Amino acid sequence: MSFNYVKNAGKFLCIGRNYVAHIKELNNKQPSQPFFFLKPSSSVLLPKQGPILVPKGVSVHHEVELAFVVGKELKNLDPETFTNEQALDAIDGYALAIDLTARNVQEEAKKEGLPWTIGKGFDTFLPLSPFIPKSAIPDPYKVDLSLSVNGTVKQNDSTNLMIFPIHKILSTMSSVMTIQKGDVILTGTPKGVSAIVPGDKVTASLSYDGKRIEEANLEFD
Amino acid sequence: MSFNYVKNAGKFLCIGRNYVAHIKELNNKQPSQPFFFLKPSSSVLLPKQGPILVPKGVSVHHEVELAFVVGKELKNLDPETFTNEQALDAIDGYALAIDLTARNVQEEAKKEGLPWTIGKGFDTFLPLSPFIPKSAIPDPYKVDLSLSVNGTVKQNDSTNLMIFPIHKILSTMSSVMTIQKGDVILTGTPKGVSAIVPGDKVTASLSYDGKRIEEANLEFD
Ligand SMILES: [Mg+2]
Ligand SMILES: [Mg+2]
Ligand SMILES: [Mg+2]
Repeated sequence: MSFNYVKNAGKFLCIGRNYVAHIKELNNKQPSQPFFFLKPSSSVLLPKQGPILVPKGVSVHHEVELAFVVGKELKNLDPETFTNEQALDAIDGYALAIDLTARNVQEEAKKEGLPWTIGKGFDTFLPLSPFIPKSAIPDPYKVDLSLSVNGTVKQNDSTNLMIFPIHKILSTMSSVMTIQKGDVILTGTPKGVSAIVPGDKVTASLSYDGKRIEEANLEFD
Repeated sequence: MSFNYVKNAGKFLCIGRNYVAHIKELNNKQPSQPFFFLKPSSSVLLPKQGPILVPKGVSVHHEVELAFVVGKELKNLDPETFTNEQALDAIDGYALAIDLTARNVQEEAKKEGLPWTIGKGFDTFLPLSPFIPKSAIPDPYKVDLSLSVNGTVKQNDSTNLMIFPIHKILSTMSSVMTIQKGDVILTGTPKGVSAIVPGDKVTASLSYDGKRIEEANLEFD
């Protein structure tokens, strides 16, 4: 089990609104193009590093997501010609991630037209699993993501429900900023997000083609 | 002249709306608390690394700013007791920075309640000067920031016009995320922002107590 990829990540980028049912549950508008935001490296929380922190007055929502680690520099990719196969070739491996979100802070920011940085960037707001080698996930659209709170399943959906596939995510991002080897990219959350409170036990897991990948299990109090 | 601080920066954080006249020129609301956003390390542009890139269809605004480099980890600082003196003690040194902004992209994001990441994060959108030792700037509120486009002065104001001083910036940021040794923080731009187009010569400089700090000069085509 290796977390070296975390140290080597120059940036942590997240796609918003990439699953239809999640967009609907938050009454959001479906984007015509992928949009994305940064999480700071200070928000990373690794297994056994301690609990998820719930800041006072903050409604912290879980968003379980498939993350991937970029294997080479990508710049100004042409969205017309950059293929799924080329995208998979540019991936080094995967991780299970939780994009924790201060929902009330984010909603206020959205209303005021302010950055999402605070709502997405508190300490412990980016739980990450060990590195999952590419061989364990030959097809990133055959992954089942699952997240439970106190033993109750809250999120459980397949990555085949993504609106924007990874090659589209990468071509869009690379048209704005250079995607560097080591960057970690989160691909969006399926439906079922909900608030957690201090003391809640949050577990998340990932299955490939129906089979649990045990190294990816996450568990936080 | 050293740029080592750039490599050692875990994150680049920027305060928005920290000068009254700049808030007014963009018809923005004055914040009651500092808010902030991240720029990716991929947006850094150092002197002689090439021109500022103006993406197609994008209105790129210059925002000249005083940046500082954090000298120690800061966590959950108490805004009631964290003093100006303690803040200056936590600073390693300074830099002159330009927070380039895709203004039309940012305005659209504000209207839609979307993240500022794209509007702030294009490649070359963070020109930075060499490290300026603390001894050259004993008081960060006695700095004059100046930026010219094709020889015409567009921005020229003193940092004593900041709404939120550095100790307030740091206590607010540290209540959200751990501020780490090496982090680079931009303190906001004074009035006079305007659009630049390809081929424009952008120069920026910094004076302390009326005397130009030559190492800090920035010049981009
Ligand atoms: Mg970084
Ligand atoms: Mg998310
Ligand atoms: Mg700015």
